[in-house]
Amino acid sequence: MVETRRQQIEDAASVLFRERGYSATSVRDIAQVLNLQGGSLYAHVASKEDVLWSIVLRAADRFDSIVRPIAEAPYLPAPERLRRMVRAHARVVTDDLGNATVFLHEWRFLGDARRAEVALRRDDYEALFRTVIADGSATGELDGADPKLAATLILSALNGIAGWYRPDGPLTAEAIAHQYADLFTRALSPTGGVDR
Amino acid sequence: MVETRRQQIEDAASVLFRERGYSATSVRDIAQVLNLQGGSLYAHVASKEDVLWSIVLRAADRFDSIVRPIAEAPYLPAPERLRRMVRAHARVVTDDLGNATVFLHEWRFLGDARRAEVALRRDDYEALFRTVIADGSATGELDGADPKLAATLILSALNGIAGWYRPDGPLTAEAIAHQYADLFTRALSPTGGVDR
Repeated sequence: MVETRRQQIEDAASVLFRERGYSATSVRDIAQVLNLQGGSLYAHVASKEDVLWSIVLRAADRFDSIVRPIAEAPYLPAPERLRRMVRAHARVVTDDLGNATVFLHEWRFLGDARRAEVALRRDDYEALFRTVIADGSATGELDGADPKLAATLILSALNGIAGWYRPDGPLTAEAIAHQYADLFTRALSPTGGVDR
Repeated sequence: MVETRRQQIEDAASVLFRERGYSATSVRDIAQVLNLQGGSLYAHVASKEDVLWSIVLRAADRFDSIVRPIAEAPYLPAPERLRRMVRAHARVVTDDLGNATVFLHEWRFLGDARRAEVALRRDDYEALFRTVIADGSATGELDGADPKLAATLILSALNGIAGWYRPDGPLTAEAIAHQYADLFTRALSPTGGVDR
């Protein structure tokens, strides 16, 4: 029951953080959505930041748990790993749009220590993409002149999906994931046709 | 003098909006940075939203005035137009990082009518990219299966630069602009080497 209430609080907070931003949301706002007194919320959460922290950790875990096994699959060639990682990341964004958006936009409002921890985790996650691009470049299967910049470009574009995707929009999540994977794979293809 | 003070207010507001977010910044905060009384700020601006509106309009104008002439240059082939548009957009982001960031992240806090106007302007701007990709696809110079999605991908990645670029970082703005242009051009190259 306490678990459930805590989850309700996080879900309500996630909606408000996404709509108004973390800074403009008060504990009272969250309580109001749940028909609670502001004070009774504190039986379940230590602070507003504590709720943001839970949402951020859960989202970060989700990306990591789904994409890391693909990145580290020893039997797949680098371009195929990259393609699957892109598709998987896109699907995490579209499947859990609300929490992904809060994670991506509001994490910078965490306190210093937690923000530093998230920055490290994000860098660690981005390294999965850098490594696959570097692996593929080493074998000639990919042409990533600058794996770090290419990984940044890919993740910026993928995270941007959170800003415009609508479940009832004209493109299915599946179509977006596939087309993004195609475009990035071609961008890094060693036979890309542009003189450089 | 009034012009100058207004500009000072917008600059101070832009820094605060970027650091704390628009919602968490008060008119008093802006006044404090300028050593003014909150009330005397209202001699220069009608409201906090009014200041955000000025910053947003100025940034939108900047992107448009620099990128539109390239998009509409009749004498350049589509891939070259796309390449130059990408470089130009990236340079606007890196040259005016503060205002670009506020424009890209805080515009959604504008009131309904202004937000709708910005949404229209952004769509109009994105259409420049869609059109060039569609033009190039029609002549076979580019392979954009879905020009709308490709334009969205490109602009998401370009706007993402505002989130990580540091003027004192390892990559120059020029290098970022060039490499992004390379990667996008290859992603849309008709001789891209990936089977589809």
